[in-house]
Amino acid sequence: MTTTYKNVYIKDTSTIAGIYEANGPLKEYYDKTYTKDLYFGESSWEHAEIKLLKDSISHLLKKTKLKETDIDLIISGDLQNQIASSDYALRDYDIPFLGIYNACATSSEGIIIGSTFIEGKKAKNCIVSTVSHNTAAEKQYRNPTEYGAPKPPTATFTVTGGASILLTNEKTDIRIESSTIGKTIDKGTKDVNHMGAVMAPAAADTIYRHLKDLNRTPDYYDLILTGDLGRHGKSILIDYMKQVHNIDISSNYDDCGTIVYDIDKQPVFSGGSGPACSALVNYSYILKQMHDKKLKKVLIIPTGALFSPTMYFQKESLPAIAHAVSLEVVEK
Amino acid sequence: MTTTYKNVYIKDTSTIAGIYEANGPLKEYYDKTYTKDLYFGESSWEHAEIKLLKDSISHLLKKTKLKETDIDLIISGDLQNQIASSDYALRDYDIPFLGIYNACATSSEGIIIGSTFIEGKKAKNCIVSTVSHNTAAEKQYRNPTEYGAPKPPTATFTVTGGASILLTNEKTDIRIESSTIGKTIDKGTKDVNHMGAVMAPAAADTIYRHLKDLNRTPDYYDLILTGDLGRHGKSILIDYMKQVHNIDISSNYDDCGTIVYDIDKQPVFSGGSGPACSALVNYSYILKQMHDKKLKKVLIIPTGALFSPTMYFQKESLPAIAHAVSLEVVEK
Repeated sequence: MTTTYKNVYIKDTSTIAGIYEANGPLKEYYDKTYTKDLYFGESSWEHAEIKLLKDSISHLLKKTKLKETDIDLIISGDLQNQIASSDYALRDYDIPFLGIYNACATSSEGIIIGSTFIEGKKAKNCIVSTVSHNTAAEKQYRNPTEYGAPKPPTATFTVTGGASILLTNEKTDIRIESSTIGKTIDKGTKDVNHMGAVMAPAAADTIYRHLKDLNRTPDYYDLILTGDLGRHGKSILIDYMKQVHNIDISSNYDDCGTIVYDIDKQPVFSGGSGPACSALVNYSYILKQMHDKKLKKVLIIPTGALFSPTMYFQKESLPAIAHAVSLEVVEK
Repeated sequence: MTTTYKNVYIKDTSTIAGIYEANGPLKEYYDKTYTKDLYFGESSWEHAEIKLLKDSISHLLKKTKLKETDIDLIISGDLQNQIASSDYALRDYDIPFLGIYNACATSSEGIIIGSTFIEGKKAKNCIVSTVSHNTAAEKQYRNPTEYGAPKPPTATFTVTGGASILLTNEKTDIRIESSTIGKTIDKGTKDVNHMGAVMAPAAADTIYRHLKDLNRTPDYYDLILTGDLGRHGKSILIDYMKQVHNIDISSNYDDCGTIVYDIDKQPVFSGGSGPACSALVNYSYILKQMHDKKLKKVLIIPTGALFSPTMYFQKESLPAIAHAVSLEVVEK
């Protein structure tokens, strides 16, 4: 489902990152980094993840000089079972809350829902948040990292970060121009260490429908940017778009998973993943390029593997989804 | 956040129920029941839950004579980790999907999001679905039922059911009149066997704000109906509303958890719970009373404990949330 918007703007964003991210190429763009360890002074990885999310919400309120009561609505989701990081973070804020889950496509899902509230004049200020934490995710989805389980090069590395964006009906320099809601795509892939292969067909389906519905070609955008396919998934997506949809995106396409880290030097396998991967990159580095007018039209497509360990243990394949959001510099 | 709507109608609903629900007082109101066992011919409880959800979506399409391509959007959530039932059910439908999670308040969260898309003319037909399965939930949240762990009378019994509602911009006899999005409320309760006590303050906060924002008194509604507080939580809510908010709801208030079962005869402790509890009752029995004009204005408040076993094991208390939706018979 593709929609265009006339009155949805980005007021500001906040990005809080962990040590691997702070050692990566985008360090200078984050609002705050935790570089000592992955606990941030908390008693568990899960509580550290909650802290990241709360930091990002509080920092966004501070940056925008808004009070909790100025915010009509917060939409948040994360990778913890029962989206526990969002549930527990939000009990400390006096803001109406809608919980969402589309795995690592959660940030664009939230932007689409929030934009719908603002465009329809049901909300004036809406925060959309997400968070992920490397070792909390490893513990829940795979093995505690202490086991030292080996991984193949196609595996990705969950980004530790909390990121929030404030959508508003007041004109700013960047707006949400359009969006496409994705469908659940399952091509039968069962390799949990190759999420890029799982998610690439979902990204392709959403990009294809977005361009078709709006009668656009890839060069309409200065940049087309998927969420967390990693270096292997990125190459699969380029081939898949060419072969299945006869569309060449190779000249202006990139993936946040390959931007958030120096994938040739850091121990991150194929690249970054997790809902914070695309949110950290988009809300810091990409928006900075747009504020500076170096990029004017960007299509972000956060990608999510709708992966459940329970279903995987029952020998199920892995469904995926991707939602696209078009960001545009507002011409004065 | 309270909102009124002008152009959101209920086209139809579907309700699929399990054996305990079929043995309850609302049997005749459900579209379909599975009365042999809780597997429904599937290989696991989780797959049985996926089947319930798919049944409810497919049955709703059949009842409304609509094709998948007629549906702009489906919004769905459930209790499985990573909302796996929704993720896996939706791979079999060619419909854009937004996944949501607010525990047992998921159905009203979905109706509010769906209504926002329809009121803002971003969608014409939107399905909102939810599902829960008794033994799948017990296995994930508590203990496999084979353990035979004893429970106190304040415990609730997860409803086995799949339920879907089709929201549309075309006029019908019942409309979504208004809604109030809840805040995350945590009063420090840690008893996972007394969810009514956990959720009652969240329900009270939402009901209070709904009435205040719209300048209404409880008698505006023919019925005020919470989701799954059970008999103990119901009594707590009545007292809490009186003592904290000075509002008497006792004359026209009830709880779906005490309606879905015969709580004096069935082995369900304090009553039904789970996202399907309120959805089954509201989408079958309550809407029938409204079609028949026996009830004209109903405020439903599905209630959710944002309970995560991981956080509970870390000695955390249990946050809760409740979203209110006002249903109104359309006067000709």
